[in-house]
Amino acid sequence: MANLRYDVLGIGNAIVDVIARAEDDFLVEHGMHKGSMALIDEARAQAIYAAMGPAVESSGGSAANTIVGVASFGARASFIGKVRDDDLGRTFAHDIRAASVAFDTKAAISGPSTARSYIMVTPDGERTMNTFLGAAQDLTPADIDEARVASAAITYLEGYLWDPPHAKDAFVKAAEIAHKNKRRVALTLSDAFCVDRYRTEFLDLIRKGTVDIIFANERELHSLYETADFASATKALRDDAKLAVVTRSEKGCVVVTGDFVEPVAAEPVDKVVDVTGAGDLFAAGFLVGLSRGKEHRTSARLGALAAAEVIQHLGARPAVSLKALAAENGVAL
Amino acid sequence: MANLRYDVLGIGNAIVDVIARAEDDFLVEHGMHKGSMALIDEARAQAIYAAMGPAVESSGGSAANTIVGVASFGARASFIGKVRDDDLGRTFAHDIRAASVAFDTKAAISGPSTARSYIMVTPDGERTMNTFLGAAQDLTPADIDEARVASAAITYLEGYLWDPPHAKDAFVKAAEIAHKNKRRVALTLSDAFCVDRYRTEFLDLIRKGTVDIIFANERELHSLYETADFASATKALRDDAKLAVVTRSEKGCVVVTGDFVEPVAAEPVDKVVDVTGAGDLFAAGFLVGLSRGKEHRTSARLGALAAAEVIQHLGARPAVSLKALAAENGVAL
Repeated sequence: MANLRYDVLGIGNAIVDVIARAEDDFLVEHGMHKGSMALIDEARAQAIYAAMGPAVESSGGSAANTIVGVASFGARASFIGKVRDDDLGRTFAHDIRAASVAFDTKAAISGPSTARSYIMVTPDGERTMNTFLGAAQDLTPADIDEARVASAAITYLEGYLWDPPHAKDAFVKAAEIAHKNKRRVALTLSDAFCVDRYRTEFLDLIRKGTVDIIFANERELHSLYETADFASATKALRDDAKLAVVTRSEKGCVVVTGDFVEPVAAEPVDKVVDVTGAGDLFAAGFLVGLSRGKEHRTSARLGALAAAEVIQHLGARPAVSLKALAAENGVAL
Repeated sequence: MANLRYDVLGIGNAIVDVIARAEDDFLVEHGMHKGSMALIDEARAQAIYAAMGPAVESSGGSAANTIVGVASFGARASFIGKVRDDDLGRTFAHDIRAASVAFDTKAAISGPSTARSYIMVTPDGERTMNTFLGAAQDLTPADIDEARVASAAITYLEGYLWDPPHAKDAFVKAAEIAHKNKRRVALTLSDAFCVDRYRTEFLDLIRKGTVDIIFANERELHSLYETADFASATKALRDDAKLAVVTRSEKGCVVVTGDFVEPVAAEPVDKVVDVTGAGDLFAAGFLVGLSRGKEHRTSARLGALAAAEVIQHLGARPAVSLKALAAENGVAL
């Protein structure tokens, strides 16, 4: 078995966020589904950018945000994802490395430009994402470094990887390497519409044990089991998964195992500014807790603390040291 | 005389800010002078970027920030400044147009890339800027559209324009057109070190009446008159300038004319997050007040409101409608 070098390795789409405030009317006018992620082509990307307000650019990507959160908690973190060798690609690489994450996936030297997500933040703090996948389309199994996966306690994968054509092969390769090395594999279901696109495959991953730990929010869970009833969806998840966490915004989360369903409260928040990254950062805290051998309840608390931090400012990555935040809240890491 | 189409036209360096949080130690290690703006070449830009933490990108530029503030107050605004036809140039153009500012300076199609300022924000909220001027170096008198200057009530120029080789000629051309059309010309002294570089020329501009309205902060004023005494510096300014405003951070500002020196209080602020843009946004409010025929005291109040807004979040442009903010504070525009 390889030496343990990383607590968590994330694999996901490498994306730069272009974030603007928008009114609800803007979403309606432009046919956007509030709170969800839509895939767009380059032409629609240009049209949306031309219509949207002044923006700020900030590195994003769901699994990448999680991994930056993991590093901010002081854990050893690595990331695999595909950018182009352009300005935004250099921005992405700079930001993730500057956050102490090991990242050296080769940038594409031809093909589409680095992925961008045009994110509208409405006055209620909800975010609506329009993602041009660009170079992230080109992640392939060749980008999955066997030694790196083998040396990570947990490999964390995003459901969004089912969108690019070859990334799911990369996903499966990574999961196989991890299990061959007695490591754990975690999956976030990413988005309710993403679950709708790949329901059968996601259920298969869970039921066959390709993934050991599941992260979902309430909408994604309901989409997975095609029911609006939380209790029956949770029951189904309990039958299918070894370990899962379902996040429920201000209602907190429930940790689901074969033995129990344990609710954990959310952290109180003064004002929700931008919910982008809430689920990503929750996963960061929970994964760090797991990798440190904390109880599920404490791991969920770390997730709640990180999620509460990220929704109180614009952008999907922490603005403070999460390790210090955990310490202030009585959790030493 | 040309028809009035703009309340304020700004001319300045077109820059995209790359903003990161940093500790004071970082400034010392990298030989940065806290609170000031240093000009850097491309090699130093790369070295600083490699060393600095995760960043967010946000359109900036001192006069450009002011003009976006002017538009946010609901006034008619235009901007002249030079970008390259690259990704950051498109970002700059998008953001300023999306803020309802008329902007159509031709982008450079060769030469250095769009200007970037690497801004370190320390825990006290102070900002330290390292600017690679890039394409902004290439602003020339040919970029000054006579009709546009003639149709603006106030042309607002930044002292930083003295740094690029041909921009000062563009500056002088704009001032001449404005005065020929009975318009007013405003100048911000920009930075204490900038004043140190061009003291004689700035004093000349003021004393010869090339500029009618002066914006300075306390440090810039002291640098201009090479004195540490506020009262004597203010006295000197009163002798030299028709109308000036000296901003003094939390101490508010003083409006200086031949007849009086009138202090106006700052707006109370809960927590200073990032002072970048404080002076720029103060100027926006004051200029809007002037262009609307408000009293100097009310104009200064508008400046104070805008400055207070911008220092309570990361980035140098307003996050809310300044027109609405003014209305909430009893000033209808």
